[in-house]
Amino acid sequence: MTNPSIKKINGDFKDKDILSTLQFSKKDIDILFDTTDKMKKLVLTKGGSDILRGKIMTALFYEPSSRTFGSFVAAMQRLGGGFIPLQGMTNSSAAKGETLSDTIKTFASFSDIIVMRHPEVGSVHEAAEATDLPVLNGGDGINEHPTQALLDFYTIKEELGKIDNFTITFFGELAHYRSINSMPKLLYQYPKIKMNFVSPKQVGLSKETKKFLQEKNIRFTETEKIDDVLSETDVLYVTRVKKEFLPEVLYKKVKGQYVVDNNMVKKMKKKSIVMHNLPRIDEIAIEVDKDPRAVYLRSEMKNGMYIRMALIALVLGKIK
Amino acid sequence: MTNPSIKKINGDFKDKDILSTLQFSKKDIDILFDTTDKMKKLVLTKGGSDILRGKIMTALFYEPSSRTFGSFVAAMQRLGGGFIPLQGMTNSSAAKGETLSDTIKTFASFSDIIVMRHPEVGSVHEAAEATDLPVLNGGDGINEHPTQALLDFYTIKEELGKIDNFTITFFGELAHYRSINSMPKLLYQYPKIKMNFVSPKQVGLSKETKKFLQEKNIRFTETEKIDDVLSETDVLYVTRVKKEFLPEVLYKKVKGQYVVDNNMVKKMKKKSIVMHNLPRIDEIAIEVDKDPRAVYLRSEMKNGMYIRMALIALVLGKIK
Amino acid sequence: MTNPSIKKINGDFKDKDILSTLQFSKKDIDILFDTTDKMKKLVLTKGGSDILRGKIMTALFYEPSSRTFGSFVAAMQRLGGGFIPLQGMTNSSAAKGETLSDTIKTFASFSDIIVMRHPEVGSVHEAAEATDLPVLNGGDGINEHPTQALLDFYTIKEELGKIDNFTITFFGELAHYRSINSMPKLLYQYPKIKMNFVSPKQVGLSKETKKFLQEKNIRFTETEKIDDVLSETDVLYVTRVKKEFLPEVLYKKVKGQYVVDNNMVKKMKKKSIVMHNLPRIDEIAIEVDKDPRAVYLRSEMKNGMYIRMALIALVLGKIK
Repeated sequence: MTNPSIKKINGDFKDKDILSTLQFSKKDIDILFDTTDKMKKLVLTKGGSDILRGKIMTALFYEPSSRTFGSFVAAMQRLGGGFIPLQGMTNSSAAKGETLSDTIKTFASFSDIIVMRHPEVGSVHEAAEATDLPVLNGGDGINEHPTQALLDFYTIKEELGKIDNFTITFFGELAHYRSINSMPKLLYQYPKIKMNFVSPKQVGLSKETKKFLQEKNIRFTETEKIDDVLSETDVLYVTRVKKEFLPEVLYKKVKGQYVVDNNMVKKMKKKSIVMHNLPRIDEIAIEVDKDPRAVYLRSEMKNGMYIRMALIALVLGKIK
Repeated sequence: MTNPSIKKINGDFKDKDILSTLQFSKKDIDILFDTTDKMKKLVLTKGGSDILRGKIMTALFYEPSSRTFGSFVAAMQRLGGGFIPLQGMTNSSAAKGETLSDTIKTFASFSDIIVMRHPEVGSVHEAAEATDLPVLNGGDGINEHPTQALLDFYTIKEELGKIDNFTITFFGELAHYRSINSMPKLLYQYPKIKMNFVSPKQVGLSKETKKFLQEKNIRFTETEKIDDVLSETDVLYVTRVKKEFLPEVLYKKVKGQYVVDNNMVKKMKKKSIVMHNLPRIDEIAIEVDKDPRAVYLRSEMKNGMYIRMALIALVLGKIK
Repeated sequence: MTNPSIKKINGDFKDKDILSTLQFSKKDIDILFDTTDKMKKLVLTKGGSDILRGKIMTALFYEPSSRTFGSFVAAMQRLGGGFIPLQGMTNSSAAKGETLSDTIKTFASFSDIIVMRHPEVGSVHEAAEATDLPVLNGGDGINEHPTQALLDFYTIKEELGKIDNFTITFFGELAHYRSINSMPKLLYQYPKIKMNFVSPKQVGLSKETKKFLQEKNIRFTETEKIDDVLSETDVLYVTRVKKEFLPEVLYKKVKGQYVVDNNMVKKMKKKSIVMHNLPRIDEIAIEVDKDPRAVYLRSEMKNGMYIRMALIALVLGKIK
């Protein structure tokens, strides 16, 4: 790994930072998913527990993200812990000229765990180096969003009933989505997963991720046409083609081709799923929501909370 | 009822949305007020309880409202629950173009109950339809603010010692206050309540509320002069005549007539009360605060928290 | 004391407002520091406790302060209490024209204790007079910040192993720091403490504080040169010389003289400490952080949370 602050988990989550999906071996994923199963069961039966009584999480958000913020904050409280809500951090100490390292050391003094979102790539590594507390990456620029990738993979496992031997098709905008960077770094360990990348060329797979896949000998294809791969797809992972990253003429041309509707879903396998990280604008038609294959509103979000409960409990050493 | 998402409570609060005062029968009000009595006793003796341990409330505020926000958030925590604080929501997902329905479904994934304030009339119904979780209306534009009406009615009952057979005088601005829409829809069920509406004609009783009162055969009067009804008034319900809704000439003319001072209160019954939803600007003189009839700072606010504790516990099925 | 709302603690913290360090006798400080020791031990062994179960703190911040806000909010939750987070209060009720007194009365209705930061000197006294609940001063303009002074004094005691008989040197900007107002009002009671004030003349000791020290017969010196007092210093209390308070020519001239670096620290006693309230910009070089004498990141912040836990528990009468 290029970054020295990324430590392999190697079966022992306690006190580890969670910065990148690259930290997770297959065994680590098994541990995490088993713990997530338990968390799900806990919430569905009792709502929560008291295992984190007296523990505090600092939720340090330098970018607005009500979704990730809410998911972490709910996860912490469902386990009995407290939290320091810090959204819109640009207004405060940072504005006074304090370094990120000092800010982290300060909030580390009050808390037991820190979750951070920051617009700058690499910032979360700087944060992790500033403190011995576990730091969880809630998104660092367009770099990584590991808990998102983990919750997506957990959702796949749960919905398909298997953790390997499926075809996942990333569809839409690939160049500017951090989950497109995080997912392959998680899935590459499973040799029977095939990945398709469907996008306008201009916003296709990043060179870095492509190189990664080649080095790891992963089966993958790149195309501009969803029809090339739709029938073999088990997981359709949808992102939004964003206006701002394409010339206007091109945007108008490709726009309609990167929208999922019932017509498209009809061509998919019966036992397949449509995923989306949300917020969704118009890249998935509302009509699709009712299709049993649509999991983005039905289970992805909930799984995000369960995964975060599991991660928090594991890095705080409160669960085996 | 015009809106399909408004469901009568009919003695069973569990899993119900609380969107409008129209949902409440006399029996429902009795249940709610009894539970509120218990909550009050609980807070005064022990501070709180643990009955909502493991439960999470999303406090989704699209308009600033520290008062209603604080009251709900305190209520939830006093019963042992946690919360997701989302004030100033316009900055986040909504800004990215997400529908309200998707936002609600997302936060429903993390929580057990949602309270929402939104500037648009009807938005809370859209929210309620998006999820099976109970949604509490914390104010939808100038339409309704049911928990405010309920806490006001509870305060009347507590202060006057009766739930019927009194005269309530709404005084000031009536056209642009949501509580003026919500209160009559609650009180109409008690045949011995008389309502007076005292305001400049330009900002008087809305046509809709007037029609409602006529259809229900409620005794009510409209006048511009408080002296016409002050001596018979048991409850003086004060609102502020707002500059922005009147021509300047008229505003200057009526301004002083819609301010409550000791001189006015002196003319009221000994056992009567002066209410106000707060914030108060200058429509009630500070000198009135010390009068035993002034309940706005003494008991209205506290009752708001007790009512919300009761509602939360009831819709979550944690109390009978 | 000039302000009638400042009440001496006299060994009994219960229900007292904490507005100024002038309220604390030596005995009160002993009680507080003993309780703080217990809180520290509690956090280090168990993380927290349940003694404030059912209690609510309103955190009313009219100025951004993630640091003080986070410290109080963590303190409250570590003891089992809940909180109402109100940062950026100018946007809400205050903007609607409500008086501070009404705002305080409102949030007093929901809570058991209020911590407030406000840009106006004296505002916290107005708040304290509006309610019977304990009000904690989290900083009122450039006037006072008593919990900061208390945590600093606690840190001194802990690091030096004594509460009297040391030399403290305030270094940098003295005229516009509220801790420079609060600290002497706490330390004057210990006759063997010597105070040095080192600063550019233009931003030196305020007349008011100077007069206070003279009246109390405290040993103190004023100088522009740190070398005059560095070798005798046990506590170097660093603040930042701010550009905005000095003519540009003068600022450029003095700038480098009011920066602490390893070269300066080398001249200090082996058993001495360097303190700073943070955020630090460039008035202490990063290289100093690793010196064992640097306590600003190592213990000052943590002690802030312990002190606040102790104060909250004491004024709520939950600890003896």
